[in-house]
Amino acid sequence: MSVIDVHTHVYPPAYMDLLRSRNAVPYVRSFPDDPAAGDRLVILPAEDTPSTFRGRPIGPEYYDIKEKISFMDAHGIDISVISLANPWLDWLPPSSASETARAINDDVERVCAESGGRLYAFGTLPLSAPAEEVVAEVARLSKLKHMRGVIMGSTGLGSGLDDPALEPIWGALEKCEQLIFLHPHYGLPSSVYGPRADEYGHVLSLSLGFPLETTIAMTRMFLSGVFDRFPNLNVLVAHSGGTLPFLAGRIESCIAHDAHLKKGGISKKRRDLWEVLKKNIYLDAVIYNEVGLSAAIAASGADRLMFGTDNPFFPPLDPEEPVWPSVTLNSYAVEGAVDKREDREAIMGDNARRVLRLPG
Amino acid sequence: MSVIDVHTHVYPPAYMDLLRSRNAVPYVRSFPDDPAAGDRLVILPAEDTPSTFRGRPIGPEYYDIKEKISFMDAHGIDISVISLANPWLDWLPPSSASETARAINDDVERVCAESGGRLYAFGTLPLSAPAEEVVAEVARLSKLKHMRGVIMGSTGLGSGLDDPALEPIWGALEKCEQLIFLHPHYGLPSSVYGPRADEYGHVLSLSLGFPLETTIAMTRMFLSGVFDRFPNLNVLVAHSGGTLPFLAGRIESCIAHDAHLKKGGISKKRRDLWEVLKKNIYLDAVIYNEVGLSAAIAASGADRLMFGTDNPFFPPLDPEEPVWPSVTLNSYAVEGAVDKREDREAIMGDNARRVLRLPG
Repeated sequence: MSVIDVHTHVYPPAYMDLLRSRNAVPYVRSFPDDPAAGDRLVILPAEDTPSTFRGRPIGPEYYDIKEKISFMDAHGIDISVISLANPWLDWLPPSSASETARAINDDVERVCAESGGRLYAFGTLPLSAPAEEVVAEVARLSKLKHMRGVIMGSTGLGSGLDDPALEPIWGALEKCEQLIFLHPHYGLPSSVYGPRADEYGHVLSLSLGFPLETTIAMTRMFLSGVFDRFPNLNVLVAHSGGTLPFLAGRIESCIAHDAHLKKGGISKKRRDLWEVLKKNIYLDAVIYNEVGLSAAIAASGADRLMFGTDNPFFPPLDPEEPVWPSVTLNSYAVEGAVDKREDREAIMGDNARRVLRLPG
Repeated sequence: MSVIDVHTHVYPPAYMDLLRSRNAVPYVRSFPDDPAAGDRLVILPAEDTPSTFRGRPIGPEYYDIKEKISFMDAHGIDISVISLANPWLDWLPPSSASETARAINDDVERVCAESGGRLYAFGTLPLSAPAEEVVAEVARLSKLKHMRGVIMGSTGLGSGLDDPALEPIWGALEKCEQLIFLHPHYGLPSSVYGPRADEYGHVLSLSLGFPLETTIAMTRMFLSGVFDRFPNLNVLVAHSGGTLPFLAGRIESCIAHDAHLKKGGISKKRRDLWEVLKKNIYLDAVIYNEVGLSAAIAASGADRLMFGTDNPFFPPLDPEEPVWPSVTLNSYAVEGAVDKREDREAIMGDNARRVLRLPG
């Protein structure tokens, strides 16, 4: 069985240089009053306070591609489709965004080209640049040999994925057959976690903020009719869809019972969410348990799930541990949830190979 | 097969009088500039603006118990366990909260007593009152013949369900064997829905805000160790647990990978979320599709799911329709998701009968 990891992140050299040069979120910094903390990566405003969980340690596993290959070897991963780790490039100054994106994408393409077939990638779009520059980068990416789509956050051009200003970009992605890897970053406003959130480390923001952000972003994109206007647009949704497979029934019921929507607020020819889940949406299998994975498969089909690791995030707490539990939780979930050997092979690698046109 | 509805709401007369007497959320009001709108119930601040979706019509289906019985007859429901519709009583002035709660609970108890065995109820706690008064109302409720627990929102005493000040109340509920019916009300901050939210009617706040609020509230309650300290506390979680069954794997993985929690931020003897889902949590079967329902059953067990309707919310858009699709979606989901007849009967009624000590 060949194993392909579609959810695995890097900070290429050009991006590390940028993060180190900054002194506001997102950035890499050290803490003179706590030298033992080493270099820390601070990617969210809520992490940028003196607390028990200020940022996270950042070492070569984030930027040294040899570490990625070692990790792949240790976990039996044949091919990784790498993507920039969050945050992406929606925060860059508009005037330099395209140039920065090109430099980072070229860095990533070069790393893939030198990997001997082990690495492919999702590119990154300069979303703060004018739309025509974003469209140009979509076209350029589609001609790079190792690029297989783009990673994108939930904010789009600043107003979310239901923003009409995104239409030319959806059109370009559809036309160039570039898959969108939709990934959360901002989470939810910290007020929802209450006054004790710090006591729970990163648990609330990572385990809930991330998938709930994804769920809201995808639902807004769906409700705005993007998949009706761009029926061949494909989205790989991180973390098995956030919670979309579980909530799709409730979302469809709320649509069916909404007086305002019945009056014409939504297209009568709209495709329902179940159809979109089976035609436009792919889900990674990064859900850490077979209960969630089974629901994801039931929603989208065993031919639309793709194994992932989220490396280098969620390393073992014991650095001596050679095999990462965050990886085996997901591979065991595939074994536990899927009866047919053929379906297991599809999820572990064959789906990614087919959808992302990978060799082997 | 007998059918018991554990998720069905009323505004008893004492509560309607209160809502009509107010001029701020929550309240019942008419709109002089739009007489056709009739009486409108406005329960959320976001609804209290001139928009396409200001509040919702409120008629006898909310307060006339004859309508509830007719609805039950039309849908083959033998027994309903009624609860106050949101919002509950966390917003009352502290000095009068207990008195108001007693009046409302007595109203509900009287309605049940006069129903000839068709109605039982979850009471409501005066959460803005001093803790000892809340504890006293728990004890009083446990002696009323038709009360089977309490309905509760996600805010507790104002700081969420992980607030240490709730401990005496959890203790009283555990001691008096009163089930908590945990139900969302506040949703999420409206900023997460973006500038186009109004175009989607109530869909985002109802289909996502509600279950995501529930998920966060339950996760905070779990992380704070409530179920370790009160191992016999039982919670019936609305809408099949929000999204808890789907996300439980990710939550446990985030806990297992959190350096801060490993340092001692969480009890080493803690029971994990899967155990709590199978020992302390019951789930209603209000999820509108078999994908979500199957995940809920896989998480908690077919012996812990209980059928519900959410009546009088989600009526058919065509008022002539005699059978509500919002009800049949849920009963069809039970048929579709559950193979064994015995398990279907358990979910449709037998579990509620056993857990809530109902006759028949």
